[in-house]
Amino acid sequence: MTFPIDDTHDPALTSWVDSANDPATDFPIQNLPFGRFRRAGEARLRIGVAIGDQIVDLEHAGLAATDDMNAFMRAGPAARQALRRTLSRHLRADSAERSRFVASLVPMASAEMGLPCRIGDYTDFYTSIHHATSVGRQFRPDNPLLPNYKWVPIGYHGRASSIGVSAETIRRPVGQAKPPDADAPTFGPSRRLDYELELALFVALPNAQGEPVPIDRAEEHLFGLALFNDWTARDIQAWEYQPLGPFLSKNFASTVSPWVVTMEALAPFRAPFAHPEADPPPLPYLDSPANRASGAIDVALEAWLQTAAMRAAGRPPQRLMQSNFRDSYWTAAQLVAHHTVNGCNLQPGDLLGSGTQSGPAPGQGGSMLELSVGGRAPLQLADGEQRSFLEDGDTVILRGHCERPGFRRIGFGDCAGTIAPARFA
Amino acid sequence: MTFPIDDTHDPALTSWVDSANDPATDFPIQNLPFGRFRRAGEARLRIGVAIGDQIVDLEHAGLAATDDMNAFMRAGPAARQALRRTLSRHLRADSAERSRFVASLVPMASAEMGLPCRIGDYTDFYTSIHHATSVGRQFRPDNPLLPNYKWVPIGYHGRASSIGVSAETIRRPVGQAKPPDADAPTFGPSRRLDYELELALFVALPNAQGEPVPIDRAEEHLFGLALFNDWTARDIQAWEYQPLGPFLSKNFASTVSPWVVTMEALAPFRAPFAHPEADPPPLPYLDSPANRASGAIDVALEAWLQTAAMRAAGRPPQRLMQSNFRDSYWTAAQLVAHHTVNGCNLQPGDLLGSGTQSGPAPGQGGSMLELSVGGRAPLQLADGEQRSFLEDGDTVILRGHCERPGFRRIGFGDCAGTIAPARFA
Repeated sequence: MTFPIDDTHDPALTSWVDSANDPATDFPIQNLPFGRFRRAGEARLRIGVAIGDQIVDLEHAGLAATDDMNAFMRAGPAARQALRRTLSRHLRADSAERSRFVASLVPMASAEMGLPCRIGDYTDFYTSIHHATSVGRQFRPDNPLLPNYKWVPIGYHGRASSIGVSAETIRRPVGQAKPPDADAPTFGPSRRLDYELELALFVALPNAQGEPVPIDRAEEHLFGLALFNDWTARDIQAWEYQPLGPFLSKNFASTVSPWVVTMEALAPFRAPFAHPEADPPPLPYLDSPANRASGAIDVALEAWLQTAAMRAAGRPPQRLMQSNFRDSYWTAAQLVAHHTVNGCNLQPGDLLGSGTQSGPAPGQGGSMLELSVGGRAPLQLADGEQRSFLEDGDTVILRGHCERPGFRRIGFGDCAGTIAPARFA
Repeated sequence: MTFPIDDTHDPALTSWVDSANDPATDFPIQNLPFGRFRRAGEARLRIGVAIGDQIVDLEHAGLAATDDMNAFMRAGPAARQALRRTLSRHLRADSAERSRFVASLVPMASAEMGLPCRIGDYTDFYTSIHHATSVGRQFRPDNPLLPNYKWVPIGYHGRASSIGVSAETIRRPVGQAKPPDADAPTFGPSRRLDYELELALFVALPNAQGEPVPIDRAEEHLFGLALFNDWTARDIQAWEYQPLGPFLSKNFASTVSPWVVTMEALAPFRAPFAHPEADPPPLPYLDSPANRASGAIDVALEAWLQTAAMRAAGRPPQRLMQSNFRDSYWTAAQLVAHHTVNGCNLQPGDLLGSGTQSGPAPGQGGSMLELSVGGRAPLQLADGEQRSFLEDGDTVILRGHCERPGFRRIGFGDCAGTIAPARFA
């Protein structure tokens, strides 16, 4: 699509920031994701770029005139690409700027991360047909995949105010739920609290209200991707969601990872995209040769769980599942084209959730609802514990990375949240 | 509830602004609604208060230290009440401030109105059981009112970025729709474009994430009410809305009236509230003696239509229907208590839509979908035209007012929008 593979992607590049050359880092010099951070003792958020275990303070380095990430997003791909090239040059092992630039580094360990930007509107999509089918089977056994699924990139609006950044605490929500055999709902803490493994697509360029974005311009309107956990209370959802969709089951909290991996950094990891031959082809506004050639993005995704007992015993988190954004039924460009086809205006900083990314195989469900088959097949954890849904003290960590022969692996960092007990109402 | 009836509501009060004493004005001295306006030639929005056909420029009058309405909203009811008392005193016919204050008046005719505030998140509720039943009958003939309706104040998230202010043009959206007898969806301009007559409740005080607002504190978190048109493309909605709710069918545009009638101004128009005896009582978090005593608000609502042909012939708009917010199944306080019971954080300037306000009788539907029974019984207009749904050139005007013996009638001003032809994709 729009984003070139250039010398910033050269896998032989190393940085004078030693930790960026660690094969295990998510943030080698080929990545350079954007985020916002606070220096110790400061209230305001600054724009930073991750390199190894350090953050480049863009304003301090003389590379940003503003600490307003949304304004930077609005500047669009050309400004972002120019900054990427400058950063790549200054951070290379042989850069003459090292001695000047080193003073602009802040260790991640001493910084507090904020949301990457102000999020005006948050839309959540539903792009994994594997998720839609397996969840649909639990809510509507006779009708798992609705007739619109293969035509419409299903999406709905979410709550922007309650989106927080990784490493936050999620208070277990209370609300109404109705057991299937009960006459009336009960009220209390959710008993079926779940995670959802998603990607967050951040909007860069706006479109004017009334002006659709054609599919082949759609990616110009995207800034990049982060990990996203759309925490969900399944018992509240089942009772409230008809006829207008999820509400209190989701809007108590969502968590985004602090670093946005740019469309430029993702350029080497694009993949062909096509609906299965047996499925209807996309309508013209959702189709283009470029989208078919490279509309998909190969992002390996994982969810990890560390229970309170694991933490107390010094055991590391356990991986629950893996999937890949490449398996999404709709591409990033299709989501933007669909969202705007009616004239809806997207704004810099808006967040588009991919929807839960489940893989095609059993065990690849991007939520506990899928992994435990609605609680009927509890997961056996390695330390002997069982889980159907999340319990107080559980930490869920989402991870993601891109790799391809001939290119340096890049990662997304962690998207973590820990469940706290319900507040008693 | 929280808002006293005091001398600012005295029906005998008159103003030295003559137009405020016109019996037909929506903005007598007993109202004093807040909005944001631009003076001719200025880019920035200022906070104003409507009085007759004039606007008090609060900053110019020395009554506001800021032009940030959201900050004023955040200051809460005490600050708002104090300002109301000051304004009432200064605008009374016998005020000694007249000669000083008159320089701070801007004629409405020379001002451009903006959105009343920055709207962070927009939630739409579904509080009219009459609307839910009659629309439900069209989408689900066998199951019009779902089992959760009488327990859960059903709500969902809407799109904040596309909310505009009265007198705007609404471009007819394009999108997918599937006729019931077709195998595949078609793509094109919506053929079933509709209005929805709603009230907008604006949030004043925030609540912290994780901290519910108890029902008897809920109204402290509200600023006031305006009119709201949640334009809807019914054909797009019918095809897209399962399983996650409306999306492109609504997010192309919504329209709010420019003046927010405060909770203080509404104090004389409160009404008792109770669910019908045969219905389940509200769960404890949605119930209180104060809510039962005066949780409802008596706001008479009307929708008017002026077609292009009427305009060309110099004919005035025709009233389509009337209803009253008093007939809502859930109160404003219940909406706030429900929205926050799971810990969801509301912020100053957030907009809560009441959902379409339909009355109990046929002909009281708050949308064309109801008035024309899904298009099967087109409305006969007085000039000989027919309407099932909105046509290009149609102007929809929502109006509302409060009246009660012993008090001065107050109104909301117009909430108008005109349909423009679809942009050809």
